[in-house]
Amino acid sequence: MAHQKSSAEPEEGPLIKMKDLLTTIGVSKATILYYLKEGLIPKPVRTKSNMAYYRSACIERVRFIKDLQSQYRLPLAAIRKVLEERDQGRDVLSLIEMGKVVFGAKATNQVNQKVFCRMTGLTPKQVEECLSSDLLLPFENGMFDQEDIAIGQFLKGGFGVGLSIKDLDYYPRLAKETAKREMAIRMRLTKDLGFERNVSATMELTRAARSLRNYIFERHFQRSAASQAPSQKVCKKK
Amino acid sequence: MAHQKSSAEPEEGPLIKMKDLLTTIGVSKATILYYLKEGLIPKPVRTKSNMAYYRSACIERVRFIKDLQSQYRLPLAAIRKVLEERDQGRDVLSLIEMGKVVFGAKATNQVNQKVFCRMTGLTPKQVEECLSSDLLLPFENGMFDQEDIAIGQFLKGGFGVGLSIKDLDYYPRLAKETAKREMAIRMRLTKDLGFERNVSATMELTRAARSLRNYIFERHFQRSAASQAPSQKVCKKK
Repeated sequence: MAHQKSSAEPEEGPLIKMKDLLTTIGVSKATILYYLKEGLIPKPVRTKSNMAYYRSACIERVRFIKDLQSQYRLPLAAIRKVLEERDQGRDVLSLIEMGKVVFGAKATNQVNQKVFCRMTGLTPKQVEECLSSDLLLPFENGMFDQEDIAIGQFLKGGFGVGLSIKDLDYYPRLAKETAKREMAIRMRLTKDLGFERNVSATMELTRAARSLRNYIFERHFQRSAASQAPSQKVCKKK
Repeated sequence: MAHQKSSAEPEEGPLIKMKDLLTTIGVSKATILYYLKEGLIPKPVRTKSNMAYYRSACIERVRFIKDLQSQYRLPLAAIRKVLEERDQGRDVLSLIEMGKVVFGAKATNQVNQKVFCRMTGLTPKQVEECLSSDLLLPFENGMFDQEDIAIGQFLKGGFGVGLSIKDLDYYPRLAKETAKREMAIRMRLTKDLGFERNVSATMELTRAARSLRNYIFERHFQRSAASQAPSQKVCKKK
């Protein structure tokens, strides 16, 4: 989608060197290069002597992205969307709020795969298999949060009593179909709405889908459990 | 399953009249007749004059059933199972605990269908349709708890923006398949276990299934949401 250039885009202001950008903001060079690669910040201006200069407005932009990443669990696509709307001069607070509703609270205490294996008892091979079969779905590549760890422990317990990944692969299969249908409904109901109404409708639909899904799956589980209990009468007739 | 007669079965003790049973325990005649119909308490002894007498041990049994019903959200089949194991002289505390884990906490403030319609805004016809298509799954026939009401409100909202029951019928369909597979795994893993180990394994499996299911469905939902956001780069290249 092409969009209007706005005052929020960091194309004005004095030029500064990468080194000064880093020390001013306190981020690593790798972070800046990553933002550049992902197109989140504009490319530096190159001088005749092949020195790279950044617009000073970049400072605020990098800080903003860093805040989004550290305070919210927004995927890159959502951060892009926030920046895009912001560049058009829109108030993005509700969009960030929507991201919180959809993607949940920022995870703390993430661990890498080695620590994850130690905490769950899963072997690296098992972790790879769970990842590739979508039984483990860490939010950040190679990093595992407390929820991933709890699930890893359940999976370890399951494998310990003879379950295989194949026994559980109905979960990702049915979850994918569920998500696909939930997204289709969302698209259908929001496609003609303007920005503000789309954001609030998406939040409302996310809450509704989550509640409905949990309720229906849990109640069906309980219904099955109830019908699985023995049904014969317990008092012998005399 | 045939089972041994044990001291716990109320076949001993002095005989008392229905009227005395009711006043001693403080239950309605309908309750006693319901327990009788469901075979939860033994049939009364009939005298020559066709008077029905209950064993006095019945008092304790009716109180126990009443407690189970008022304190826990156990379906009839689960109550039967508890009584059956108790009649065999087994300690049923862990079984009751298992019922709590599987069926959740006892609902308070249930309302009838008329109040349910008023609180959700759904018409009686819509409620019937939601019930018959398994979108609404009240725990007790004709009674709706706070969770049912919240779901009813979401459904009303959905119908209001043009969703039909057909749009949402993937939920019960996929939930049924999920529950069927969860139960099959449980049966496979517990079929050779003795009573105590079966109970504790079922609790563990219930917790694991619930966590795994919620995690995988939610993360797939988030993954779909992340990939639905616009993916173009937000900074125009110059």
